[in-house]
Amino acid sequence: MTVARPIVFLTDFGVEDEFVGVCKAVVAGIAPDASVIDLTHAIPPQDVLAGALTLARAAPYLPADAVVLAVVDPGVGTARRPIAVEAAAGPILVGPDNGLLSLAWEVLGGVRQALVIENDDLFRRPVSATFHGRDVFSPVAAHLAAGLALEEVGSAVSGGGLVRVGVPAPVVGDGRIEARVLSVDRFGNVQLNVRPQHLATAGLGDAVTVDPYTLRRVASYADVGPRELAFLVDSSGWLAVVANGGSAAVALAVGRGDAVILTPPAGV
Amino acid sequence: MTVARPIVFLTDFGVEDEFVGVCKAVVAGIAPDASVIDLTHAIPPQDVLAGALTLARAAPYLPADAVVLAVVDPGVGTARRPIAVEAAAGPILVGPDNGLLSLAWEVLGGVRQALVIENDDLFRRPVSATFHGRDVFSPVAAHLAAGLALEEVGSAVSGGGLVRVGVPAPVVGDGRIEARVLSVDRFGNVQLNVRPQHLATAGLGDAVTVDPYTLRRVASYADVGPRELAFLVDSSGWLAVVANGGSAAVALAVGRGDAVILTPPAGV
Amino acid sequence: MTVARPIVFLTDFGVEDEFVGVCKAVVAGIAPDASVIDLTHAIPPQDVLAGALTLARAAPYLPADAVVLAVVDPGVGTARRPIAVEAAAGPILVGPDNGLLSLAWEVLGGVRQALVIENDDLFRRPVSATFHGRDVFSPVAAHLAAGLALEEVGSAVSGGGLVRVGVPAPVVGDGRIEARVLSVDRFGNVQLNVRPQHLATAGLGDAVTVDPYTLRRVASYADVGPRELAFLVDSSGWLAVVANGGSAAVALAVGRGDAVILTPPAGV
Repeated sequence: MTVARPIVFLTDFGVEDEFVGVCKAVVAGIAPDASVIDLTHAIPPQDVLAGALTLARAAPYLPADAVVLAVVDPGVGTARRPIAVEAAAGPILVGPDNGLLSLAWEVLGGVRQALVIENDDLFRRPVSATFHGRDVFSPVAAHLAAGLALEEVGSAVSGGGLVRVGVPAPVVGDGRIEARVLSVDRFGNVQLNVRPQHLATAGLGDAVTVDPYTLRRVASYADVGPRELAFLVDSSGWLAVVANGGSAAVALAVGRGDAVILTPPAGV
Repeated sequence: MTVARPIVFLTDFGVEDEFVGVCKAVVAGIAPDASVIDLTHAIPPQDVLAGALTLARAAPYLPADAVVLAVVDPGVGTARRPIAVEAAAGPILVGPDNGLLSLAWEVLGGVRQALVIENDDLFRRPVSATFHGRDVFSPVAAHLAAGLALEEVGSAVSGGGLVRVGVPAPVVGDGRIEARVLSVDRFGNVQLNVRPQHLATAGLGDAVTVDPYTLRRVASYADVGPRELAFLVDSSGWLAVVANGGSAAVALAVGRGDAVILTPPAGV
Repeated sequence: MTVARPIVFLTDFGVEDEFVGVCKAVVAGIAPDASVIDLTHAIPPQDVLAGALTLARAAPYLPADAVVLAVVDPGVGTARRPIAVEAAAGPILVGPDNGLLSLAWEVLGGVRQALVIENDDLFRRPVSATFHGRDVFSPVAAHLAAGLALEEVGSAVSGGGLVRVGVPAPVVGDGRIEARVLSVDRFGNVQLNVRPQHLATAGLGDAVTVDPYTLRRVASYADVGPRELAFLVDSSGWLAVVANGGSAAVALAVGRGDAVILTPPAGV
């Protein structure tokens, strides 16, 4: 007896309507013993970057046999391609070729094999023009969870030909980084579009100022002192401003998309 | 080995409290290997019509062996009957006899068999007066998912004796329909209480005006042009106003229950 | 073939971020056939008492083989201990030793066996300082659901050495109780920090006044008359003010934490 692969499900559908449930009903009709894990359905509508960042943060914790079903798809009904990507670490990612999956496959060791989904025998027919989540992505993910060979879903393409999400680059100067907030989580941690190498390029090091605060670089949350703001490199490789006993986002008065300026520590 | 039937679960309980989880715990105690699919728990409190319309929209996508567990039950504790209905297409629907299930069984080919739930050996005892979701409907659905024969839940009744939900009728005149909004989904699609035959009766055809817009009738979402408002017959058989690139509800400035007037296209 | 024990999951994580889904992914990697039942993830952040009360309300409905995974953990990263407690009625409770589990094990017949979780072979490494839900509690609960003997998770401790949640005591005088609202559910039922013995001590009996209302004591919701406010002893043993046809919380204009004064019925 083969156990079905678990499906990890992320969308921007919300849970007020029946859309998520309908996709799961379609999965249940194809792969009755596949478990479906909701990662979140609260991605802001059509925000591919937010979805890609969320998938990337979750990627290190996925079972190696997971099938990721991800649908944030502003291009549904256009020529954007549906894809299935096997990452080097094992999980298969199913979704639109709009960059949504691209940060996750980077975290998962890169692309081992990529296919454009073309086998419409797998689809729910008729395929609506607006709900490929239900008619294309859910049934394909369900067939893969039930054991279908990846090669059966379509034609191989090179990983290099896939769309990657454009994370906005910070403006890096001498002793100054103009960053953007990528995300704020429920605990108020502030993820920035800054990689450690940007710090090096700007000549910034173990402490930075985000006016009026001076933040110490720490290795992990455990090193943040009481009522301290600090920064660290999070599990996706981004700089994050974090607090111990409060919300870094509230302290900095920032939300997603806002600018954050990093400068050398005051008095240095 | 028989696999349990999947349970598709819809309520107005919300997910802030523990009510949905408690019902699932009761199910797990009876049918440990039945999967439970949340359709939605965000039906407006006690809004039987909204619940019925949501179930009807989802019905075409249910596995044939699904057990629908639906609880929107303003009459709990009164004489309203608990029922289990097998639809011609296969699914069994469990819930109160207040019309909640009636639009779904229509979509599913009508009533094959209907029973009033009376076998209190199946219930969780003591049965509370206010939470039949936990004490009556969840355990009965769980037993059915685990393989109990439908006949075991109670006494047969004729489908004609069941309560049907009253969808408010539009006011149809010559060249004019006064419609109501049945629902608005997250994407802004506006479902109206209008059937294609109402259009024919009013002498309206392939285009209508919803002041100030003229809407073309399309066969599917795929036929809607960029930044166009159009109308179509949705999968539940209702007219829906839809947009390409935006929300039809925002364009029309309407929400659930609001009036929408359809007239002939301007200049015709 | 042994079926995995079901995991009943309660947190204050919300479902906007990926935290709950990441914990479930960790569970799926260890116990692929364990079902996870979301009790709720909407406990107010770091509100241990609210989480404890919710678990206690749900406890009577849990399967005897349930593994409760509960994380409301303001002391994460401090010396507070992770624990696993087997209740007399069967369920195993996994979470922080901060009182979160204590009201549930009381409802479940008390502590049969308690252990401090110490076996870090079970943990996800590296263990973060801030997310023991993912790195400690989820994997331990998953191993227990998959059949690990409870003794394997750590060292036995006496139940008497565990932290219990401090429910604020009412101020009980002669003919008067100054109570607090413990919780209000979606239906407006108002749970008070009052046990039946407090009523006896105050000399209050089958009716009380909560100005300007006089409330009759009823045995169950079924005994509440139309448009009546009444009180009863709920399934967790607390007094609750309930209404038939409306919200008791709205009628009393109270929310969680507010004071409610009980006095003898007017005219008595």
